[in-house]
Amino acid sequence: MSENNAPPAEKVVPLTEEPKEGGGEKGPSKGALKKAQKEKEKAEKAAARKAAEDAQKKQAEANDVSKNDYGELDPFGRHPGIPSNDKVPRVKLAAVAEQFQDTTHAEENDGPHVVFTATVANSRGQSAKLAFMELEQEYNTIQAVVAASDTLSRQMVKFSTSIPSQSRVVVHAVIKKPKEPVKSTTIQNLEAHIKKLYIVCKADAQLPLQVADAERPIPVEGEEEQKGEDDGRPIVTLNTRLNNRTIDLRARHNQAIFGIKAGVAELFREFLKTHAFKEIQSPALLGAPSEGGANVFEVSYFGGKAYLAQSPQLYKQMLITSNFLRVMEVGPVFRAENSNTARHLTEFTGLDMEMELLDETNYHEVVSLLENLMLYIFNGLRTRYSKETDLVRSIYHVEDFKLPEAGKVPRLTFAEGIAMLKEDGVDVGEMDDLSTPDEKRLGALVLKKYGSDFYVLDKYPLAVRPFYTMPDPATYGQDASNPNAGYSNSYDFFMRGQEIMSGAQRIHQAAFLEKRMREHVSPVDPNNPGLKDYVSAFKAGCNAHAGGGIGLERIVMLWLGLPNVRLASLFPRDPTRLAP
Amino acid sequence: MSENNAPPAEKVVPLTEEPKEGGGEKGPSKGALKKAQKEKEKAEKAAARKAAEDAQKKQAEANDVSKNDYGELDPFGRHPGIPSNDKVPRVKLAAVAEQFQDTTHAEENDGPHVVFTATVANSRGQSAKLAFMELEQEYNTIQAVVAASDTLSRQMVKFSTSIPSQSRVVVHAVIKKPKEPVKSTTIQNLEAHIKKLYIVCKADAQLPLQVADAERPIPVEGEEEQKGEDDGRPIVTLNTRLNNRTIDLRARHNQAIFGIKAGVAELFREFLKTHAFKEIQSPALLGAPSEGGANVFEVSYFGGKAYLAQSPQLYKQMLITSNFLRVMEVGPVFRAENSNTARHLTEFTGLDMEMELLDETNYHEVVSLLENLMLYIFNGLRTRYSKETDLVRSIYHVEDFKLPEAGKVPRLTFAEGIAMLKEDGVDVGEMDDLSTPDEKRLGALVLKKYGSDFYVLDKYPLAVRPFYTMPDPATYGQDASNPNAGYSNSYDFFMRGQEIMSGAQRIHQAAFLEKRMREHVSPVDPNNPGLKDYVSAFKAGCNAHAGGGIGLERIVMLWLGLPNVRLASLFPRDPTRLAP
Repeated sequence: MSENNAPPAEKVVPLTEEPKEGGGEKGPSKGALKKAQKEKEKAEKAAARKAAEDAQKKQAEANDVSKNDYGELDPFGRHPGIPSNDKVPRVKLAAVAEQFQDTTHAEENDGPHVVFTATVANSRGQSAKLAFMELEQEYNTIQAVVAASDTLSRQMVKFSTSIPSQSRVVVHAVIKKPKEPVKSTTIQNLEAHIKKLYIVCKADAQLPLQVADAERPIPVEGEEEQKGEDDGRPIVTLNTRLNNRTIDLRARHNQAIFGIKAGVAELFREFLKTHAFKEIQSPALLGAPSEGGANVFEVSYFGGKAYLAQSPQLYKQMLITSNFLRVMEVGPVFRAENSNTARHLTEFTGLDMEMELLDETNYHEVVSLLENLMLYIFNGLRTRYSKETDLVRSIYHVEDFKLPEAGKVPRLTFAEGIAMLKEDGVDVGEMDDLSTPDEKRLGALVLKKYGSDFYVLDKYPLAVRPFYTMPDPATYGQDASNPNAGYSNSYDFFMRGQEIMSGAQRIHQAAFLEKRMREHVSPVDPNNPGLKDYVSAFKAGCNAHAGGGIGLERIVMLWLGLPNVRLASLFPRDPTRLAP
Repeated sequence: MSENNAPPAEKVVPLTEEPKEGGGEKGPSKGALKKAQKEKEKAEKAAARKAAEDAQKKQAEANDVSKNDYGELDPFGRHPGIPSNDKVPRVKLAAVAEQFQDTTHAEENDGPHVVFTATVANSRGQSAKLAFMELEQEYNTIQAVVAASDTLSRQMVKFSTSIPSQSRVVVHAVIKKPKEPVKSTTIQNLEAHIKKLYIVCKADAQLPLQVADAERPIPVEGEEEQKGEDDGRPIVTLNTRLNNRTIDLRARHNQAIFGIKAGVAELFREFLKTHAFKEIQSPALLGAPSEGGANVFEVSYFGGKAYLAQSPQLYKQMLITSNFLRVMEVGPVFRAENSNTARHLTEFTGLDMEMELLDETNYHEVVSLLENLMLYIFNGLRTRYSKETDLVRSIYHVEDFKLPEAGKVPRLTFAEGIAMLKEDGVDVGEMDDLSTPDEKRLGALVLKKYGSDFYVLDKYPLAVRPFYTMPDPATYGQDASNPNAGYSNSYDFFMRGQEIMSGAQRIHQAAFLEKRMREHVSPVDPNNPGLKDYVSAFKAGCNAHAGGGIGLERIVMLWLGLPNVRLASLFPRDPTRLAP
């Protein structure tokens, strides 16, 4: 017997059967009976009923042909019905789907037997003799059928309907072809007819977040709950989801987001490794704040203080002085910035690289390599993660990411960018850093003109970059009264008008570095405890070099068009969130 | 003209030529001349000499046929002698060595012209007309010859000898075959005859650490300076080296150590990726201490407090509840342990993994996978990093690492390990954790018995493992008076008798987890702010699972037989070191 898609039942039987009233005699009606007497009789009846129920239950258990074939496993995974030497190999649903795709419809027990572990997406009784479960394993779901028979008791059917959603079960089942394809599951041409059903870990009946709710996009703006368009169900706020992140992450598009995130990190390393970069681990704990001193987290360190690295910047450069001529790093960076925006995190993953310049007068060698790196990542996402990308975009509807023709990444100078904005009517200073709205506007203009969501802005004004940035030799020192006038050999990369990478050629001669530290718009002391080792390193010789740092979560967010960077962090950290 | 290996010079000319005395007339000797008069004459003579020298210098510069061909580049890499459009492609020494290996000895200018950037290992004058330099680039060194000729001035030869070691230079050179192989360089069958020589970044003449000293092993024990066996030069202490780590890292065996370290991380990810593990980034910043509360660093967090993760343990498990069924992570972990030993760091790189159990009663599935992972890493190091391994072992002499036969990793139970120690006469408790000396001794016994430096100790006593460890079902609860009696489904991995990995099956049912938290030898409260999200996660369902965490620096240290784990960290952190 095979039924699917929960077809209209012939006869619906209540799943929670009312216990039959047993053994209680009906006493003669006496008008004068006292209240106390009534109470006593009531209690006696209840006790008798209870005893009868227990006896019946015991009897039912004794008669239960399936008693060894279902139930809850103990904390160690054991069950009285399973011999300890019963080691049936387990399979994966993905393998089942592939291996048995051509199975034809078959009679009871006629089909391959499999054993697998799954999450119960839902379970519903059709009758006292029949129940359906949706079982999930990674991206796959399959319909399971629990049908009473000579060898499968009604008690077992009832048990199957009592399993709370999100519980993990192990099932022994026969794989069959359903009469009609199952519409509600990813595996549509197979169903699992359950023979044994054990709970590995029972979920609470009431969860603080429904996976079905997590499967929908977050509210469009702000944090207020919204009604869904389709069904009027509330759209759960981002905050509620993040408070229950371990459930939220079960949503299939969330699984896909983090598949893509892992993919970006892998593509980053893969490309750089083929270009002879060596992976490094620089310290997160620093003895003194290095990059300016603002926005740095302080750590108690054996009675003294330490600070969390805001980037591996200084260490990457110090390693260039050590003749590690091409280095890359994937690791956490920390920013004590009190920004509660949709694009800031206090802890995120930095994708960092630094390399010698083969030609000390041509930092565009690095810009080109970085452009090719990003194209490699984008193309890798297209070819390897299209399924995941489509899945996420089916939730967060966003335009496909427009890539430039190979090797033709739009690379504008900052001055050209300013000119485009001015031409578009934006009131913007020639040498001021761009505001976020102006960046987005420029992104839209570049997209319109060059047909690319990815572009590079080169030669930023010197005054808006850090002290270690190499000034543009053509404009440095032209204004004798202002050592910070002119441009610099620095660049930002943008996706959909938002910055994902910042980089530059760095100063490699110690004397000039010290000069720039002192004359910078925010001067720093070269003898500052957080900087002296850095400055000293250059005194022992250093190649000309350049590099950049990319925000991994930002790439993921902008590739997928996610409305908030927190969605690209497993357990996001911001000024008000440190849990879970 | 080609000379090599600094052959005995025909005639050694002092490199710092004495300025010729110019123009001063010798006055008649007058016995009665006053002291003041003498002084005046002296000053006049000096002034005249100075003027003459300057004139000569100017003249010499004007006559210097090479004046455009050498000198120090400005901070931007420019030189008055180099036209700004002069863009000669740069090459790598490794490519030079390969491409021109069959070059035959040739006359002046007869050979391939190349341009490359290198570090000056040393430079020495042979005569006023001839100097030799050793130029270094990554693992390659080549001898460079600076020989005076019609087109190369003596001034340029002199300049070449004035360049401090460790400076970075860019050279234009003709590649030739030396008369005899150069013994002191890695590229022995080629030498570079310099035509142009510019300093990109000049090193200080006096460096706080010599690379040659960094090339030697650290003192055998303790921190006191020792005399070298060969030459009586002092062996520089580890502390001095770490204080000048950017110079220390230039030592070739240090480059090799970090090549191997990157290799281990890569092999770890490579193996696990082929086994369907997904790379994750778990947070380093936590809202409350989680693993017991001791040894945790406290962070100031926007007026409140945060804590640095001691491992990704709880997050890996929480992700298993989220249906991330196989996860891995490579990232920093932090231990506020005041241990100043040769094997402890306060920040190190964790290689972590966690996976569902396909069969909830068989955690050895994970032990086997981890054994295979380690064998994959060891074999990968053998095949891909033999050159680097040999280089390091040429400095730190240690026995080759003995690997077990494929698939035959010695896996002993803790009880078997104790029995071996007892048989060897060690006084050790049946259920006590092993001390470091006992671990080393057991390692030696295992090596002797099984011929392997790598082995697994399985089924540790429950009482010595963390609260989340799954008890061994066969022994749990047998002693009604002690819930922590018996063993556990946990394991440590060892290299050369030192622990590199700790792992276990974890508890996956929330109720049992809470029970174990309360009855543990160091009880923890399930409602503790650092643990409640963790406990809650299991209430929404979780697969049976197991995993482990490996210390990356320990693998590197023990593979290579390094005497101190700090040598396997680029910038090590310990209770007394936070810099550089």
